[in-house]
Amino acid sequence: MQKEFDRPFVQSVLDDISHRMAGEADRGDVADYIPELASVSLNQFGIAVAPLDGLPISAGDANVAFSIQSISKVFSLVVALDRVGATLWRRVGREPSGDPFNSIVQLEFERGKPRNPFINAGALVVSDVILQEEEAKSEEHPVLELCRTLANDPTIEIDEAVFASEMSTGDRNRALAYFMLAEGNIESGVKATIESYFRQCSIEMSCVQLATATRFLAFAGNQELKEDWKLTPERARRINALMMTCGCYDASGEVAFRVGLPCKSGVGGGVVASVPGIGSIAAWCPGLDKKGNSVLAMRALEEVARELKWSVF
Amino acid sequence: MQKEFDRPFVQSVLDDISHRMAGEADRGDVADYIPELASVSLNQFGIAVAPLDGLPISAGDANVAFSIQSISKVFSLVVALDRVGATLWRRVGREPSGDPFNSIVQLEFERGKPRNPFINAGALVVSDVILQEEEAKSEEHPVLELCRTLANDPTIEIDEAVFASEMSTGDRNRALAYFMLAEGNIESGVKATIESYFRQCSIEMSCVQLATATRFLAFAGNQELKEDWKLTPERARRINALMMTCGCYDASGEVAFRVGLPCKSGVGGGVVASVPGIGSIAAWCPGLDKKGNSVLAMRALEEVARELKWSVF
Amino acid sequence: MQKEFDRPFVQSVLDDISHRMAGEADRGDVADYIPELASVSLNQFGIAVAPLDGLPISAGDANVAFSIQSISKVFSLVVALDRVGATLWRRVGREPSGDPFNSIVQLEFERGKPRNPFINAGALVVSDVILQEEEAKSEEHPVLELCRTLANDPTIEIDEAVFASEMSTGDRNRALAYFMLAEGNIESGVKATIESYFRQCSIEMSCVQLATATRFLAFAGNQELKEDWKLTPERARRINALMMTCGCYDASGEVAFRVGLPCKSGVGGGVVASVPGIGSIAAWCPGLDKKGNSVLAMRALEEVARELKWSVF
Amino acid sequence: MQKEFDRPFVQSVLDDISHRMAGEADRGDVADYIPELASVSLNQFGIAVAPLDGLPISAGDANVAFSIQSISKVFSLVVALDRVGATLWRRVGREPSGDPFNSIVQLEFERGKPRNPFINAGALVVSDVILQEEEAKSEEHPVLELCRTLANDPTIEIDEAVFASEMSTGDRNRALAYFMLAEGNIESGVKATIESYFRQCSIEMSCVQLATATRFLAFAGNQELKEDWKLTPERARRINALMMTCGCYDASGEVAFRVGLPCKSGVGGGVVASVPGIGSIAAWCPGLDKKGNSVLAMRALEEVARELKWSVF
Repeated sequence: MQKEFDRPFVQSVLDDISHRMAGEADRGDVADYIPELASVSLNQFGIAVAPLDGLPISAGDANVAFSIQSISKVFSLVVALDRVGATLWRRVGREPSGDPFNSIVQLEFERGKPRNPFINAGALVVSDVILQEEEAKSEEHPVLELCRTLANDPTIEIDEAVFASEMSTGDRNRALAYFMLAEGNIESGVKATIESYFRQCSIEMSCVQLATATRFLAFAGNQELKEDWKLTPERARRINALMMTCGCYDASGEVAFRVGLPCKSGVGGGVVASVPGIGSIAAWCPGLDKKGNSVLAMRALEEVARELKWSVF
Repeated sequence: MQKEFDRPFVQSVLDDISHRMAGEADRGDVADYIPELASVSLNQFGIAVAPLDGLPISAGDANVAFSIQSISKVFSLVVALDRVGATLWRRVGREPSGDPFNSIVQLEFERGKPRNPFINAGALVVSDVILQEEEAKSEEHPVLELCRTLANDPTIEIDEAVFASEMSTGDRNRALAYFMLAEGNIESGVKATIESYFRQCSIEMSCVQLATATRFLAFAGNQELKEDWKLTPERARRINALMMTCGCYDASGEVAFRVGLPCKSGVGGGVVASVPGIGSIAAWCPGLDKKGNSVLAMRALEEVARELKWSVF
Repeated sequence: MQKEFDRPFVQSVLDDISHRMAGEADRGDVADYIPELASVSLNQFGIAVAPLDGLPISAGDANVAFSIQSISKVFSLVVALDRVGATLWRRVGREPSGDPFNSIVQLEFERGKPRNPFINAGALVVSDVILQEEEAKSEEHPVLELCRTLANDPTIEIDEAVFASEMSTGDRNRALAYFMLAEGNIESGVKATIESYFRQCSIEMSCVQLATATRFLAFAGNQELKEDWKLTPERARRINALMMTCGCYDASGEVAFRVGLPCKSGVGGGVVASVPGIGSIAAWCPGLDKKGNSVLAMRALEEVARELKWSVF
Repeated sequence: MQKEFDRPFVQSVLDDISHRMAGEADRGDVADYIPELASVSLNQFGIAVAPLDGLPISAGDANVAFSIQSISKVFSLVVALDRVGATLWRRVGREPSGDPFNSIVQLEFERGKPRNPFINAGALVVSDVILQEEEAKSEEHPVLELCRTLANDPTIEIDEAVFASEMSTGDRNRALAYFMLAEGNIESGVKATIESYFRQCSIEMSCVQLATATRFLAFAGNQELKEDWKLTPERARRINALMMTCGCYDASGEVAFRVGLPCKSGVGGGVVASVPGIGSIAAWCPGLDKKGNSVLAMRALEEVARELKWSVF
């Protein structure tokens, strides 16, 4: 991997990609099962790179906030590991689900233990773990608090309309939660767990904020994070490993193959990719492919990785 | 990742690990479904590192040849990509199988297209592709030929006793092959495909030979390989990606998490790990865990990676 | 099938079986996942035969009331067919689930349409259909009302302690219901559907009451039922067919093979069997086998069928 | 069930149905995966009833021979039970497979033990059992011998063209057989088992021959069969039970519901139904529905059952 960081070159690559993406006709479809997301315009594209040192570099709609959705699973994993450490892995696995079918099948086969923290069932367990460890009702959702800290931006908020929309349509997640409750792997009750999970999914961030907030994945030795959130280098590396094998639903292998970087995507159309030793990338376009990943954000990451020769392999 | 290569330090790390492994009591079990492998002594352990430049460094039984088994899938993938390029992916996928159950279930759901080239069904398709492209019956198996070339060692051979043992017990692989034949994804017939596949699995190599032969995974810019086997840097990186997400059966996620390097294991007890930009590691101990990976070889890789700070993440 | 009904001989057969069952040591285990059922004594056994004409014949604890549980699915099916007729089959199938694993897997494969009305998911849909058709909030649960009518006994009641126990532990059923809600196959909401379902499961009846109440299955030409509940001969025959193929969970084939009569069992330990043209049998002992069927009740039915030469085949 | 057998009325019902079926436009499709079956004309329909006493009654193309295919599984089950008795059930189950997907999934979950003798995997085990018990190589296939005996017609033969066609396309069955071989549930080798199985599937019989040959299912007390083939009344009843729960692939529940008689169908377009105490019916039309059952033969059986009031329920 090329380690020098040539800011003007990176800027020109991002500008070029942003320009090309603006002309793309085939943009996929917005997530239509969450009404509030279904109304987002497809004609938006943003990309940002947050280097280990210096300000973020961006292009396109990189300052437009969008629903981070499943990208929040990276942040909730950090919170849960901070709270309970490696005991988390007693309740959730670390293997790709590799399932073209929904994970409830897998949950049944494996008696209520989700395969990894990045599928919905696993993220629900993570939310439950966090809830169990909240001694006092904090004013803010701890995942929101972490996002603000990592992005160094207290203006980040939860989109209440998206949250309400999720609450009104999240019955499949309730099925997963009740199933795990029956198997003894949910402790805070379904209602509280689902609500906490949907709140973190409804956090709104821009590409610039997301790239900044996920820089810790590449910046393994950050002393401040190490103390406040127990984000040791080893932990950051391991989250990268999980993103690489499980971060993009049932396209994780394909993304590893094409992009070559640990990625995490969300149905809001955002994707983050960490470039160990260099920085973090966030791209966004609301249109999704059939596997739930943003068509243009993923293509942009592939092109950035190829042109900047950023790959972990 | 630390890029300087300190030979004396690497040697001392390998010696130390080899010494500790010699004293380990819990060594797993040899693969008992292949009679010839069941008779291999558990009291062996070898490890070798092949840096991009210079001679291999090794410790323990690093020059003892063993059955490479599924590690051969890395080599056969190289041969198939050399022959047919990216059209290979029409017949085999690139996603982890993530299946606690055997992959015949997945094959049925996905109509005979295996999830990746590192599960048995996928490797059988790869063998079939290679057979289809053999114009004249070459004297040597092309995967053996590649192993000799990459290891720069013409003495590497197929263990005929292991081959005979596999042929007499490989009925589950025949079931996979007939299933794919029925779905139109085997073209050379089951007999020829199975025989070719078992021949490559029966290749015998030592840790030193394997580390040397897989160095190309880390050595993306090798000009000679690029010309003779179309092993471009991009192709090497992509094979690393597949190893990371699919290389260790249903423990691939766990290995990525713990070792942090692209690995490929075999039921002969060998594991190879590539360290992009630095070199390749091979470790071997015949005892396996329940998921089919060598208990001590995998632990050794984890320790080497940690002590030498080798991780792609 | 022998059509003459020899009351003294039937009585002697029941007495003999009841006597032998009292001495059986291996009685299975009570359903322990519903606390209220777990406390029922294993040392009880009852059996009753209700012929088409004349009073019931019984032996053992045939007048002790127990929780009918899944046997209620026969009665709720009658109510739903009365309300909506054959349109019911748009929402639930008529095939055995044949699944050693729980039906949530099947639900996922078949997009929320349960395989038959006798698995839990199917019975939940049936409950939902009934709820949708209740114009005014009737004082009594319509399934309870039907049981009283069929048994000609207004003293039949719901066991409120069992109902409360089910409500506190029914999370797997809630998972099924939310899953079907997400797929659009629950219309009354999960809470109301689950509550109505658990109420019908908590009905208490004795063997004598159950045999009397299910006599309609054998008594296809009953004019009164035909008018009040649309229980035509064809409908009774079809319910028998469903009981034969789907009535005893994943042991339905085995029961058809051994008993040769349409049966429906419940985890309270009761089983009913219809003998077309002759009458109905109900047997009860709380101990269950691994598939959820009463060990002694099923054995008693097998012996009754053999000794009285009652078989549909 | 109406026990009087009114020959003129039965004849008039068959004539009427045969006449109506001749005018049906929607006839399904012939089985196209066996080339030799794909060329059979759709414009054929036959039906025959063989009463316990007296000659068969028939209509349409009831004397045209067709490939009995899976109907042969009833006969091979009789042979295997004659040879090894109830020990057969150690190697094959008695439950419906209930699987919309192919049974290889089920085989994997249940470690190579097929769910019942009427799915392909189960019939392969039955063939293997028969082969194991053949002391001397008999001149004729024992299933063919049984068919000739039961139909009292030595002219019944195997269609060698169909057999050759099956052998050339039966790779999915070979996959099943190799899978069970790997699990230790095939003892005669795959080649011999498959060949024996395909030979029995290729037996040619007409509706009249089939109805006559399956009369034993209704004629439980036949003394001659009892001695020569150990076909006791209990055994006949149990085969009826298996046909009822497992005889028509994944439509067995539906057929029980609609027809109400134990049936066994084959992809040649034939279906047999036993009417306990009365006789046996065979109907045939080569066009199949999506589940592999003859569209018109099944509809004809439903109408015969309704008009003659023949139902076991």
